[in-house]
Amino acid sequence: MYTIPELQQLIEKAIPEIDYPTHPNNLYEPISYIMNLGGKRLRPALVLISTDLFGGDVLKAMPAALAIETFHNFTLIHDDIMDNAPLRRGKQTVHEKWGTNNAILSGDVMMVEANKQLAQVDSSVLKSVLNAFNATAQGVCEGQQLDMEFETREDVSIAEYIDMIRLKTAVLVGGAMKLGAIVANASEIHADLIYEFGENLGIAFQLQDDILDVYGDPEKFGKQVGGDIISNKKTFLLLSLKQLLTANDQQRFTAQDHNDTEVKVKNITSLYNEYEIKQLATEEMQLHLEKAFDALNRIDVPAERKKELIELANELMNRES
Amino acid sequence: MYTIPELQQLIEKAIPEIDYPTHPNNLYEPISYIMNLGGKRLRPALVLISTDLFGGDVLKAMPAALAIETFHNFTLIHDDIMDNAPLRRGKQTVHEKWGTNNAILSGDVMMVEANKQLAQVDSSVLKSVLNAFNATAQGVCEGQQLDMEFETREDVSIAEYIDMIRLKTAVLVGGAMKLGAIVANASEIHADLIYEFGENLGIAFQLQDDILDVYGDPEKFGKQVGGDIISNKKTFLLLSLKQLLTANDQQRFTAQDHNDTEVKVKNITSLYNEYEIKQLATEEMQLHLEKAFDALNRIDVPAERKKELIELANELMNRES
Repeated sequence: MYTIPELQQLIEKAIPEIDYPTHPNNLYEPISYIMNLGGKRLRPALVLISTDLFGGDVLKAMPAALAIETFHNFTLIHDDIMDNAPLRRGKQTVHEKWGTNNAILSGDVMMVEANKQLAQVDSSVLKSVLNAFNATAQGVCEGQQLDMEFETREDVSIAEYIDMIRLKTAVLVGGAMKLGAIVANASEIHADLIYEFGENLGIAFQLQDDILDVYGDPEKFGKQVGGDIISNKKTFLLLSLKQLLTANDQQRFTAQDHNDTEVKVKNITSLYNEYEIKQLATEEMQLHLEKAFDALNRIDVPAERKKELIELANELMNRES
Repeated sequence: MYTIPELQQLIEKAIPEIDYPTHPNNLYEPISYIMNLGGKRLRPALVLISTDLFGGDVLKAMPAALAIETFHNFTLIHDDIMDNAPLRRGKQTVHEKWGTNNAILSGDVMMVEANKQLAQVDSSVLKSVLNAFNATAQGVCEGQQLDMEFETREDVSIAEYIDMIRLKTAVLVGGAMKLGAIVANASEIHADLIYEFGENLGIAFQLQDDILDVYGDPEKFGKQVGGDIISNKKTFLLLSLKQLLTANDQQRFTAQDHNDTEVKVKNITSLYNEYEIKQLATEEMQLHLEKAFDALNRIDVPAERKKELIELANELMNRES
């Protein structure tokens, strides 16, 4: 078995070797730009580790891994347009650097590049790979749509929120692992179980993000602690609080909208503490983590092969940034 | 053999039966909206007629035909954003009706839908179909990029212009026909020849569009005659004229930029007439039409099977709108 860092390195080496076209320059340059902004290459590494888990040849899964990473970076380009984001990993976003129209089109052709990579998998698994990939891509688009719609909706339920992060974030984690399983010729049951592992891990990961945004150590978090509170983002924490607030505290909550941001973060965090929202979020996170481990348990391969995935899950859940 | 109108009807019947998801509503509604704005369904009909030409089962080519039509309509959504177009076929564009962010995302998921349709072709031809489709999609993106870049470039050559319309328009016509050939298990040589037919027909078609925009009958043309002149669009006609203008006429030409539009159309058309630009464009169009027919001639199927395509080409070239 490979370790995750070994697989991340394999990906890191393979990315500069992808043979993107070069003309027109402005169409293709953004692809190399965003692909080389960094990132942990965790999604493509999950494709490969899943192939490895089921005893497949990880090199045969490389086209699917690169397709997942290319697709993911394509969604970053388009999401940044929609979010009007100036920066991505500390660098100018593609639409800031090349203009919005160029960024739309570079994103489009990047999706085509992802499909070109995908088409290189073995013919014997091609149809299954396409079906899994297309279902994943579709889910990610649906998640982004829901995320945008939630910004202007005041009646978002917690169930809807979980479903949104499932689609926007977790489906891609699950889909990556399913692709790896298919390339390894795993059974359909196994492919679905590793999908379930990945999807639930993805949901747990996002819930932990929500928690870290409020309770992270400012020295280690990397982003501004309280960022979600300042931008009124409807996270699991905010939605849970709103559901529980008494009429009195409702007023305390609403009053924060006119406060300066530091006071706002402090006061909303106090409300979170009083209503024990962190515990609620942690329980929900644990629930999905248990679902993930339950699915992994049901996969019929030697326990030793699962070690790396169990470690990864525990690492992700104990991270501070 | 089917006739083109019969195949267009088959497509027209199949489109409402495509099973697009429905949730989130705002993500998927634009797909049905744009797919049902009308259009001649010529591209998907060309997929089917190409299958028919090579003795294949047209129904087996339906997924590829619908993928081509879905992809084409996806490009319309994104092109309309980039062109800031308020109307498409007399109706509000998707981004006008749903907003730009929604339109970007609906376009993205529509590309996924096209890929889902494509994945339904027979496994035996799937890899070839994907390769042809992805090359086509890539070309269309490149063409749109060049078209945008030409707007602000003053040194566009005629060769570059022909290459741009080849990519933006003709590659999709050729690609559609190649897909149909692949589904019919035609030889690679035949698939390439029918591609060549389609691509050259597409270039000829676009050149005729440039001519009609200036010389069309206002009663029959459907669009405003002189529209390209008013918007300074770098068509084959304009680029040819600029290449030939004497220093004196160069001044007459430049002076038009400040005129009212009716006078501008009249004066530029006069210059076109003096320099016999219509003949030049017609010759270029004929050249590509001949290349198309030459490729068709080299296809080894009974002459009778080619009749419908020859008729179609002649009809397209003698159209008035």
